[in-house]
Amino acid sequence: MASFDAVRALVFDVFGTVVDWREGIARDAAPFLARHGRGEIDPRGFADAWRKRYQPAMEECRTGRRGFTRLDVLHRENLELILRDHGMDPAAIGEAELEALNRAWHRLDPWPEAVAGLTRLKRRFIIAPLSNGNIALMLNMAKRAGIPWDAILGAEVAQAYKPQPEAYLRTAEVLGIRPAELCLVAAHNGDLRAARSCGLATAFVTRPTEHGPSQATDLRAEDPWDIVARDFQDLAEKLGC
Amino acid sequence: MASFDAVRALVFDVFGTVVDWREGIARDAAPFLARHGRGEIDPRGFADAWRKRYQPAMEECRTGRRGFTRLDVLHRENLELILRDHGMDPAAIGEAELEALNRAWHRLDPWPEAVAGLTRLKRRFIIAPLSNGNIALMLNMAKRAGIPWDAILGAEVAQAYKPQPEAYLRTAEVLGIRPAELCLVAAHNGDLRAARSCGLATAFVTRPTEHGPSQATDLRAEDPWDIVARDFQDLAEKLGC
Repeated sequence: MASFDAVRALVFDVFGTVVDWREGIARDAAPFLARHGRGEIDPRGFADAWRKRYQPAMEECRTGRRGFTRLDVLHRENLELILRDHGMDPAAIGEAELEALNRAWHRLDPWPEAVAGLTRLKRRFIIAPLSNGNIALMLNMAKRAGIPWDAILGAEVAQAYKPQPEAYLRTAEVLGIRPAELCLVAAHNGDLRAARSCGLATAFVTRPTEHGPSQATDLRAEDPWDIVARDFQDLAEKLGC
Repeated sequence: MASFDAVRALVFDVFGTVVDWREGIARDAAPFLARHGRGEIDPRGFADAWRKRYQPAMEECRTGRRGFTRLDVLHRENLELILRDHGMDPAAIGEAELEALNRAWHRLDPWPEAVAGLTRLKRRFIIAPLSNGNIALMLNMAKRAGIPWDAILGAEVAQAYKPQPEAYLRTAEVLGIRPAELCLVAAHNGDLRAARSCGLATAFVTRPTEHGPSQATDLRAEDPWDIVARDFQDLAEKLGC
């Protein structure tokens, strides 16, 4: 772990790595669907459908077909799309209720050991999100859940969505450090591959139920990442925090 | 204080309001000057000279004559200018030492009650810097001094230097709130005037020795700000935190 001596800041993927988006969205979708007489829709399936539109929406911004647009806006557009997919009319639901459900992304709960692990890691490292979520989303989530970030970084600060190189490189730049002094912590091999190709250090943490009990992806480290840990407590242990 | 019921986030001017830049810069300049045989230069005067070039440098960016340039870069250029003003040759001093002195801005100490006051205010409000200092500067300062920010906002996130309206308005926008839900806390009447003209709530805190014992400016609230407080503990008291 010699390469880690240079690392001064840990930045974290958030959706799936720090918080359990599937259960959090399902928890808030369930009463919404019941209220609108659609209690037969599986709220976890609803969460999966909403999340499935995440990458294509960002891809519009990555390709330049659309200017950088913060994730709260993309989430809201995607919500209206999936409501229509389920035969529901967003216009009949009303602005306030749509906005409240869209804010479910601000109310996701961390994985059980995440806050304790981050609190340990913060003693030695600068810790910040490097998420595609926007600043308000990350900040409201952290304030509610007690996530002790030192700063809120990520796509909105970099004005680029992962896995675009600019998302990683501009994050190092605003921190005033070299890419090798920055480590990405993520539960996704693809995110880590993009970070490594920019010169960042890499730490993989397993989150085997992010997509539910029958998850088939990212169950193990697919490349020799600098660190591989079970969870954030194990990561803190391995980094001597 | 009815207007304060809507406020959800407090953003703070930092240089002078949260930290004592004059004593902090003087503390690091003194051994530097002595090392270079210039121990006769008053380090507080050196700090004042460095700070005096702050507004003109940002003005180049505000007017658009120069693209937005982060404060670490402006501080470094200004350091070389004032060294020359004092008959010292930056090239003879060397990169590492210049960079180390420039980082004195990352090592400023908070006013004595500031961290305790912010810790109280954080219970009820989102708290973040709205400083012209860049992200790395604010983050390194906070990490060293234990300032418990929820996020690092300000000029670099807004890509505009106070008192440009964009600095205040884009900060509300990234927080996902209306200007009236945001309050600027500052020891400077001019900063508060600009914030109020953008629709922000305003809180004045007195820092009567920011410029030393014979300070002549900003000794009192010059307009009827929404709150006027002696310091951050008094502010927390007045806001019921």
